[in-house]
Amino acid sequence: MAILVVGSLAYDTVETPRERRERQLGGSASFFAVAARGRHPVRCVGVVGEDFRAEDLALLQEHGADTSGVVREAGPSFHWSGRYHADMIERDTLATELGVFADFQPEIPAAWRDSEYLFLANIHPDLQLHVLEQMTGPRLIALDTMNLWIEKTPESLRRVLAKVDVLLVNDGEARMLTGCGSLAHAAREIAAMGPRRVVIKKGEHGALLFGADSVLGVPALILDDVVDPTGAGDSFAGGFMAELAEAGASRGDGDAVFRRAMLSGTVTASFCPEGFSVEGLLAADSEAYERRMAALRAMMVP
Amino acid sequence: MAILVVGSLAYDTVETPRERRERQLGGSASFFAVAARGRHPVRCVGVVGEDFRAEDLALLQEHGADTSGVVREAGPSFHWSGRYHADMIERDTLATELGVFADFQPEIPAAWRDSEYLFLANIHPDLQLHVLEQMTGPRLIALDTMNLWIEKTPESLRRVLAKVDVLLVNDGEARMLTGCGSLAHAAREIAAMGPRRVVIKKGEHGALLFGADSVLGVPALILDDVVDPTGAGDSFAGGFMAELAEAGASRGDGDAVFRRAMLSGTVTASFCPEGFSVEGLLAADSEAYERRMAALRAMMVP
Repeated sequence: MAILVVGSLAYDTVETPRERRERQLGGSASFFAVAARGRHPVRCVGVVGEDFRAEDLALLQEHGADTSGVVREAGPSFHWSGRYHADMIERDTLATELGVFADFQPEIPAAWRDSEYLFLANIHPDLQLHVLEQMTGPRLIALDTMNLWIEKTPESLRRVLAKVDVLLVNDGEARMLTGCGSLAHAAREIAAMGPRRVVIKKGEHGALLFGADSVLGVPALILDDVVDPTGAGDSFAGGFMAELAEAGASRGDGDAVFRRAMLSGTVTASFCPEGFSVEGLLAADSEAYERRMAALRAMMVP
Repeated sequence: MAILVVGSLAYDTVETPRERRERQLGGSASFFAVAARGRHPVRCVGVVGEDFRAEDLALLQEHGADTSGVVREAGPSFHWSGRYHADMIERDTLATELGVFADFQPEIPAAWRDSEYLFLANIHPDLQLHVLEQMTGPRLIALDTMNLWIEKTPESLRRVLAKVDVLLVNDGEARMLTGCGSLAHAAREIAAMGPRRVVIKKGEHGALLFGADSVLGVPALILDDVVDPTGAGDSFAGGFMAELAEAGASRGDGDAVFRRAMLSGTVTASFCPEGFSVEGLLAADSEAYERRMAALRAMMVP
């Protein structure tokens, strides 16, 4: 079973109260691929600029990402710059330089069009739709989006939402997308737009799955130290999709496998904030993963 | 087994985007007592002013509160006024008129000094200590506090914290009290101050129990409609303490009974925002409680 991700490969300049890192590896596709690493190889489609370091592509390759779908264009790579507040949750975006990402037209390599699992990371909904049109029929399609597209391109977003199985958003985005204050109402509205299942990511407050016929609330693991939370949401998606791919899940399945995938996403995402860039994810071996899975399950026993 | 609560009996003027209610029954002791109602009678110690309606005291009595420890003084009752934002979470305090509450000196009736369970609701820590000194030795003492006391009377707060078993606070208060960003660190610091167990209340994001040797994460129930969230935290405490009293729990017990009490607190608190004042709590019968408990447990199954 193959997982395909279409998203950004970027450089992030991140300032925290303790440290500043310049142009470290970031981007939704990078976090997603490294998060799924070892458990399931991931096919990456994206674009990088002339400045993108060969060692960063090599690092992704080394950790289970197939980057042969990443094209290099003339110009600078996507660059995001942000500063975290003392709480390590709130952040200010200082700069968003799209670079070569501005003209990104994702083309799926012919050999990858039959990938069984597709994750449409947060990019323009028209591009997400363009990707979908190239695929021969994935078993399962998940999509992430953000307030920018909800506000600016609502019709495009509706068109692509009609074709996906799982929407992953945060609670604010779910409310904005539907105009509903209650997440119960919001989840029902979203299901009516297309996605049969909705995952609400709430960072340190955990995550909710509104499944086909059940609801799951997963607490976040309690971390001793948060170094850099950038990418935790895409890491969640990586762990979530890897579990579904491992299980051979498809959209018609019951909620049980999706509930397990929520735990996998939660455990995977918990490693991300423990280091800058993908360092926290890379530091976690399968033993650390199993230990944390046991801790999460223990946190959920009534 | 008797539960004693010392806290406020107040009038709240609450504005929501849909409705405004003037001088409705509120206060920590009121919500706590009604939340525990039917499951366990609650002895209330507090003060009200000349304006406090006899029917409000009668209502509390009718629902399992013994208000013979509530004294009436010359002057107005404690009055809080606030306005909820569109999200029904954020709120602005418009007025806090302490009235007779300003000179409140809680005296515990002689016959109540051997109460087994004591909840010190959010009042000045010196008063909480004064209550403790009158007791003959409760099996279990729980305490709530707020940012005001953490900032203004830190030494008094430390003195009373050294003598209690369970602290119930929200996540911001836990961080402020300890200066720790990580809740894991904050919980350890608080345990070192005295309370062996710490409950972190997070409203719509659920609650965490840092137990003697385990951690529990409980999601909040997903509500269709939020009418007025005022008092949900004290309702949580009421459901939590009622379960502990029912079980005859004491401070030396293992975490299991405290974990069950977290579920009782969560289910009980979920009814509070569904109506103004204590109306949501009153509308919930034991059948509704059991139905919601089943829904909560289902939300927690991995």
